[in-house]
Amino acid sequence: MSDTAQRSGRRARGGGGAARRAERTAVSVETAKYIERNVPNYEVLTEEALDVIEANAETVLAEIGVNFVENPAALARWKEAGAEVDGERVRIPRGLARKLCATAPAQFTQHARNPERNVVIGGNNLVLAPVYGPPFVRDAAGGRRYATMADFEKFVKLGYMSKWLHHSGGTVCEPTDVPVNKRHLDMLFAHMVYSDKPFMGSVTEPSRAQDSVEMCEILFGKEFVQNNTVMTSLININSPLTFDNVMMGALEVFARNNQASIISPFIVGGAMAPVSVAGTLTQVLAETLAGVAYSQLVRPGAPVIMGAFVTSIDMNSGAPTFGTPEASHITYGAGQLARRLGLPYRSAGSFCGSKLPDAQAAYETANSLNMGLLSGVNFMLHACGWLEGGLVASFEKFVMDADHLGTLHQFAKGVDMSENGQAMDAIAEVGPGGHYLGCVHTQANFKTAFWRSELFDYKPFETWDEEGARDTQTLATARVQKLLDTYQQPALDPEIEARLRAYLAEKKASMPDAFS
Amino acid sequence: MSDTAQRSGRRARGGGGAARRAERTAVSVETAKYIERNVPNYEVLTEEALDVIEANAETVLAEIGVNFVENPAALARWKEAGAEVDGERVRIPRGLARKLCATAPAQFTQHARNPERNVVIGGNNLVLAPVYGPPFVRDAAGGRRYATMADFEKFVKLGYMSKWLHHSGGTVCEPTDVPVNKRHLDMLFAHMVYSDKPFMGSVTEPSRAQDSVEMCEILFGKEFVQNNTVMTSLININSPLTFDNVMMGALEVFARNNQASIISPFIVGGAMAPVSVAGTLTQVLAETLAGVAYSQLVRPGAPVIMGAFVTSIDMNSGAPTFGTPEASHITYGAGQLARRLGLPYRSAGSFCGSKLPDAQAAYETANSLNMGLLSGVNFMLHACGWLEGGLVASFEKFVMDADHLGTLHQFAKGVDMSENGQAMDAIAEVGPGGHYLGCVHTQANFKTAFWRSELFDYKPFETWDEEGARDTQTLATARVQKLLDTYQQPALDPEIEARLRAYLAEKKASMPDAFS
Repeated sequence: MSDTAQRSGRRARGGGGAARRAERTAVSVETAKYIERNVPNYEVLTEEALDVIEANAETVLAEIGVNFVENPAALARWKEAGAEVDGERVRIPRGLARKLCATAPAQFTQHARNPERNVVIGGNNLVLAPVYGPPFVRDAAGGRRYATMADFEKFVKLGYMSKWLHHSGGTVCEPTDVPVNKRHLDMLFAHMVYSDKPFMGSVTEPSRAQDSVEMCEILFGKEFVQNNTVMTSLININSPLTFDNVMMGALEVFARNNQASIISPFIVGGAMAPVSVAGTLTQVLAETLAGVAYSQLVRPGAPVIMGAFVTSIDMNSGAPTFGTPEASHITYGAGQLARRLGLPYRSAGSFCGSKLPDAQAAYETANSLNMGLLSGVNFMLHACGWLEGGLVASFEKFVMDADHLGTLHQFAKGVDMSENGQAMDAIAEVGPGGHYLGCVHTQANFKTAFWRSELFDYKPFETWDEEGARDTQTLATARVQKLLDTYQQPALDPEIEARLRAYLAEKKASMPDAFS
Repeated sequence: MSDTAQRSGRRARGGGGAARRAERTAVSVETAKYIERNVPNYEVLTEEALDVIEANAETVLAEIGVNFVENPAALARWKEAGAEVDGERVRIPRGLARKLCATAPAQFTQHARNPERNVVIGGNNLVLAPVYGPPFVRDAAGGRRYATMADFEKFVKLGYMSKWLHHSGGTVCEPTDVPVNKRHLDMLFAHMVYSDKPFMGSVTEPSRAQDSVEMCEILFGKEFVQNNTVMTSLININSPLTFDNVMMGALEVFARNNQASIISPFIVGGAMAPVSVAGTLTQVLAETLAGVAYSQLVRPGAPVIMGAFVTSIDMNSGAPTFGTPEASHITYGAGQLARRLGLPYRSAGSFCGSKLPDAQAAYETANSLNMGLLSGVNFMLHACGWLEGGLVASFEKFVMDADHLGTLHQFAKGVDMSENGQAMDAIAEVGPGGHYLGCVHTQANFKTAFWRSELFDYKPFETWDEEGARDTQTLATARVQKLLDTYQQPALDPEIEARLRAYLAEKKASMPDAFS
């Protein structure tokens, strides 16, 4: 039985009349297929430069090594694999990490509860997921404030309604009104119930990763989860060269359960890595080689993504800076290194340092989105909604960015060189001094020829002025409200929803609230 | 005697004590050298696709042909060169236009009155010039209004003060308070006197092109102008496939005087060209082949730039749209075609459709600037200040874009793979779990390591909030004022300035005012 048939069968078995009614009345929301690039990648580094960086990364692993902190099991695994272990320091002989990485798949499918929303991560593909991690939210009406679970649910709904987003993400904001040790349950429940797109698991404790797996077993079925990847989760490396036991514990849970992890340094250049592009790339490669290799020691063949979250720093204020040329160099270079490793690649996003969804935010974000597309990124976390260096999830910027992700889809299609694309008949029909608007070729193609924003203003000046001379943020405020007003929950078997609710209730009752 | 020595000599001869005093007291404004790319170009089209488009363009020229309107001399030149002339239609045998283009230089130097500001157009270089042509201006205080000569002078001063702008441009806005038949004189005077960067000549009548040459002869010396290129002017093709006698008349004046022309279609896709990328590229190539070939018929070796101003259209409203994926495809593709022709390439700019310098403006602009850099553009007109589809020159957006052009400079440097760039000592010094801020390598490199905006906000949230929670436009308003307040006119031989003023007075007295 195929994966899809198996799950459809499961759902049909589980659901009764109520489920069928729910499925009938649900409004289908259009979601674009993940991007399959038909355009080349941009390569900023020469082969010689890549060779140097790869050799340097091997030197870092062999001579400096990496620390696996408070994790005796990891040290034992490394020792058995042939590394030199000295306290918590692991020195990895040249070539060993790369060799271990070879069992990681070059691409994998992450399943969604709606099979039409499955994504294939790797190859020429690009999967777009929303912002992850901000403790604050902002909108024009309410300003900047601590995020709550109500905000979180709104973002999940906006993500579900966003045509160009393929993935529901993970911690789209931190629901600070829910106890720290319980919020992962509510977040996962929201992704599972308010959206039917794929999502991420919890990484803040190994036990929460385990809860994530168990909730997926309710949603997808236990056997399905063991045989298929249904979560992609974010495992950060503590740069420089350090792997803490919390993150590694979560990685171990996911790898053992065949669930995907993004193994990603989080680097502010000049603070957590050298203040140079080549030096940072060397460290990124050393760190991800060690992290991916470790995932394969836990379970050979476990799906992983090589990540690079790297930004520059303003040496005047110490603030991280975004959308900068150095970040572009690193993103392009890390993409080349990932392809040479044969691993899916995560980088770029709607990065900006601005406090508002203004011009600064958009310059910086557009720079990062463009480099993400051209650098061969396979999984773009933070693809919409990021504001203020990631401290804030912005409602307006979420829909602004989500709309703009359409440009990436259209560019990635490449140039149509068919006879219709060549349009020689049109040029002959119109001739010198003529006009194309009415010609046969234009009439046949105009509806799909050009990408069109659903948010930006394209009106004549006078109309725009009469309608209140609205800027992009004001238009975005209206769009947020419109999307939330028209949101309808995607159909879900009520029995599954009930079992998820019961799981949450039981788990929450089993432990006291913790707020730090 | 070298060009520079010759001109320095001239200036020293011409200037008296006043000139020397002026030169001593003038404040030197830092201007970056034009960009010399040390990064590869992005190529969206395959060799096969380029072959198809080139063959199609030859078919267009041979079978459909182009019109040279009300220009018997042009028709005679074409006939003599071997084209088939039928009324105003010129059909160019396959290969002839490309062959004629071969005498155009692959790159040329445009001289500025300050030799340090000379630019080399072609090769791997990128020269940045401001917006051209808007009849309106906008700033936060005054809103949108018709442009005046006072606005024009302000823009020239801002361009002079902008570190990342290499070129003073041409009609940075239309000074609508000056008679149509005289405003070119005031505009040229402003570029010559208020800036020392290179500039563009007038193209609105052949006689005004001639006036531009004569004013340059006063500024640079007659012999210098005949032997060197001191203007690059914008010759638009009336797409589709039409060359009017006004623009061709100006081109003829400039080519005869060894002055450079950008020969450029102005295309809103779906209106002036087919509603497809490959079809538009075919027409762009056919048009620029014919235009460049014609320049070489006028004077073999005349410096020219192959231009492509192409934008998409919103088929709902009919408005041109900017920073779109189709515009990117065309810009990348036209760059490849220009390189195969061996001609300098003009495209891209701070394009946007937005009415305000808001997020829409910045997304669209950043998209266009990025593609301009990666597509191998050699001369980027409209690199800053463009707003509302080119109807408006925005003071705030001018300084926002001009600041952001710094990112192009930094990216184009490429990745430093020196031993210092590799930073292996730093990685060894810091080790796992350490911090790079204090290490030797960071201390030695931090000042130049990362690009930094002089406009964007990088402050902590609390500081930013206390200072008024300013958005990018508000910061830009302050920057405009600061630049204008600190502006000092670059030194110019008073005798030359007096002769320019006398030329203007005489010219203006010789004709009645015309306002249409």
